[in-house]
Amino acid sequence: QIDHFGFDQNFTFQQRYLVADQYWKKENGSILFYTGNEGDITWFCNSTGFMWDVAEELNAMLVFAEHRYYGESLPFGNESFSDSTRLNYLTSEQALADFIILIEYLKTTIPGAGHSPVIAIGRSYGGMLAAWLRMKYPHAVVGALASSAPIWQFDDSVPCSAYFSIVTNDFRRSGKGCSESIQQSWKAINRLSSTDAGLQWLSNTFHLCSPLKTTRDAIKLKSWLVETWSNLAVADYPYETDILKPLPAWPVQEACKFLNNPNLSDKLLLHNVFQAANVYHDYFGEAPCLNMSEVPSKNLGLLGWNYQVCTEMVMRLCTDGVNDMFEPLEWDYDSFSEECYRMWGVRPRPSWVLSMYGGKNISSHSNIIFSNGGLDPWSAGGVTENITDSLVAIVIPDGAHHLDLHGRNPLDPKSVQQARALEISYMKQWIEKARQSH
Amino acid sequence: QIDHFGFDQNFTFQQRYLVADQYWKKENGSILFYTGNEGDITWFCNSTGFMWDVAEELNAMLVFAEHRYYGESLPFGNESFSDSTRLNYLTSEQALADFIILIEYLKTTIPGAGHSPVIAIGRSYGGMLAAWLRMKYPHAVVGALASSAPIWQFDDSVPCSAYFSIVTNDFRRSGKGCSESIQQSWKAINRLSSTDAGLQWLSNTFHLCSPLKTTRDAIKLKSWLVETWSNLAVADYPYETDILKPLPAWPVQEACKFLNNPNLSDKLLLHNVFQAANVYHDYFGEAPCLNMSEVPSKNLGLLGWNYQVCTEMVMRLCTDGVNDMFEPLEWDYDSFSEECYRMWGVRPRPSWVLSMYGGKNISSHSNIIFSNGGLDPWSAGGVTENITDSLVAIVIPDGAHHLDLHGRNPLDPKSVQQARALEISYMKQWIEKARQSH
Repeated sequence: QIDHFGFDQNFTFQQRYLVADQYWKKENGSILFYTGNEGDITWFCNSTGFMWDVAEELNAMLVFAEHRYYGESLPFGNESFSDSTRLNYLTSEQALADFIILIEYLKTTIPGAGHSPVIAIGRSYGGMLAAWLRMKYPHAVVGALASSAPIWQFDDSVPCSAYFSIVTNDFRRSGKGCSESIQQSWKAINRLSSTDAGLQWLSNTFHLCSPLKTTRDAIKLKSWLVETWSNLAVADYPYETDILKPLPAWPVQEACKFLNNPNLSDKLLLHNVFQAANVYHDYFGEAPCLNMSEVPSKNLGLLGWNYQVCTEMVMRLCTDGVNDMFEPLEWDYDSFSEECYRMWGVRPRPSWVLSMYGGKNISSHSNIIFSNGGLDPWSAGGVTENITDSLVAIVIPDGAHHLDLHGRNPLDPKSVQQARALEISYMKQWIEKARQSH
Repeated sequence: QIDHFGFDQNFTFQQRYLVADQYWKKENGSILFYTGNEGDITWFCNSTGFMWDVAEELNAMLVFAEHRYYGESLPFGNESFSDSTRLNYLTSEQALADFIILIEYLKTTIPGAGHSPVIAIGRSYGGMLAAWLRMKYPHAVVGALASSAPIWQFDDSVPCSAYFSIVTNDFRRSGKGCSESIQQSWKAINRLSSTDAGLQWLSNTFHLCSPLKTTRDAIKLKSWLVETWSNLAVADYPYETDILKPLPAWPVQEACKFLNNPNLSDKLLLHNVFQAANVYHDYFGEAPCLNMSEVPSKNLGLLGWNYQVCTEMVMRLCTDGVNDMFEPLEWDYDSFSEECYRMWGVRPRPSWVLSMYGGKNISSHSNIIFSNGGLDPWSAGGVTENITDSLVAIVIPDGAHHLDLHGRNPLDPKSVQQARALEISYMKQWIEKARQSH
């Protein structure tokens, strides 16, 4: 059903989902249901090793459900993004309804599946969906593991500056002089970009594919660097990964190796900044030049996500230059809204998600684990303290974005091992309790 | 917001609501929020005396929120019912979203209201909405009193024949020979309607404004009688009422006074049947003739409700002729669906309400009172046994449809007095608990 909430359009679409049932036991099994987020489901399936690692222990069938408007689950095929009418069904509510209908379908069509308690598991936006699925449809899932889900990164639930202050902390703890070097770099760029020669020098130094021509381009360079540092913090994992980009272990430390001296001339400082940024953009030295417009990953559906950010998923971010290493930048709702209108013909509704899903007032719900990494900037909008006995927070001090959902790795910090063990024990409790009540 | 669940249309509409705050206390008050059902809110406001009776005891502000597409809350004015595109936003989900947005608005704009716990109260369809509001938005309301809310009257959650078997029981217990007389009447009508003279006789005997001309008209007469008996059972109150029609106290008993002998000739029997039916249609003898097409009440929005029944609110009803006093009539989904398509251009989704609101699997929720009258046919689809400590059922053996929400009356049976006392004590507990947790 393309529109679960209206009866005028009765069109349906094909939603993709992946099922792995080799560990599933009909008699006393369970179903782990991955609530797909903004991208190709096969990619999420392959990078959520935790589910594969625990499948046997929980006798679990694994289901990975693709989110509408991503991957191959396009309601209107290639036309899905062509206008605001066709995009009208890209909302979290519709996605959740897809999930419950799919769960019902699996439970009624797979013999024996009706007895298997379902647990929702998701990460990032998909973690929000997992939590919201449990909140709104507790009859469909007995519990939810919401990994790195910033459910409070909306409206004024948390300070908009919290995200970048965590980014800054990551750099601060990862090397002497590191955050200070980045802090100094903005003025250095400003000074150099005031002349054509400086712009030329910056273009060469940063190996940019398209040279900077105006001060506006220099602003773009700075945004690109802000995003670079943020992404490094988000992906600050203890081992080599290839999620958004191929990265070394502890990439923030790796970057900080180049940034130990903030008291250098502009050019020397920025040369170091380039090398640090290159840890993210081209660690393995394969790119002939760096493209500032490059999208992070083909596996993510940036177009769809941009629409969602422009409608429901309005996440306020800002910097203050005091608690973070960036130039101060206020959250400018009006220009954000204008940009959304220009791009999609829609206006954001920044408080709707809080009205819909309860914001901070969610204590009546149950059986949700909110896990967050201490290194992860998105933990700023996450639930990091227990709300009740059954709405629990797990903080992984050495973890970046959804580290707990990765597969086991010899380099895993103790804290993520403990977190996973705790998650498994909660899930077992939910399954046990569900089984008893049947 | 006309469409809470999509961003393409950004239109808004004016929703009507009534507020009575004379008993409200800012410091330790509460808000009783009537979740409007399918009709004019002033009418519901005036016929929900219970809320007025308890306002002082609970220091409560009373709010009566009109349901979209009813009364004056028409999203597209007079055009609201003109086509399926404009009707697309007439769903329970949109109505619930209206309610939470209104609650937020009241809490933020009325000084002091932010501290008052809100309790949802509704009856019949509005009782479902009250229960669903608590289930889906427990952050918005601390509890719900769902009076005579048949939340399970969908798909195959309950036998479709249960409704009419309760109607039958009401007549059976209200007079010797009563249900038997009605049972006999169908064949009598069938026999008489096989001739023109018989049709003429029926038209005269039943004082019909438009005479019966064909066997098809006779079928209409029978449907009209089925509806008459059902409505009498629904409105079988212990005192005179004027809800759908002006009725005497215990109208089923009143009707049964004419139906004590089932073993009469067709004409004598049907003459009695007319007199019994007249208890419903014209007890006070004011109508020159009876109009079979007459709508029950101008205060109810029949057009909107018919659309809702044709989309989400698909309530299965049938008779078997064994456990009830009617001719057997199966639930014919296909012709129902065809009729809906012909009338509105939409197809019903009979299982959606169960998927959306959990059907019988709602034990994770909390703080809902389901009250039902033992005489009320709609109790067939209601919750009549406790589900958990905080999802409780109150059955009022001598009560018809939502008697508990009526104002106090000297003729109230003991059972409804006890029910109300229990309801008040639960509501006080919810309020107390909400206050403690702040």
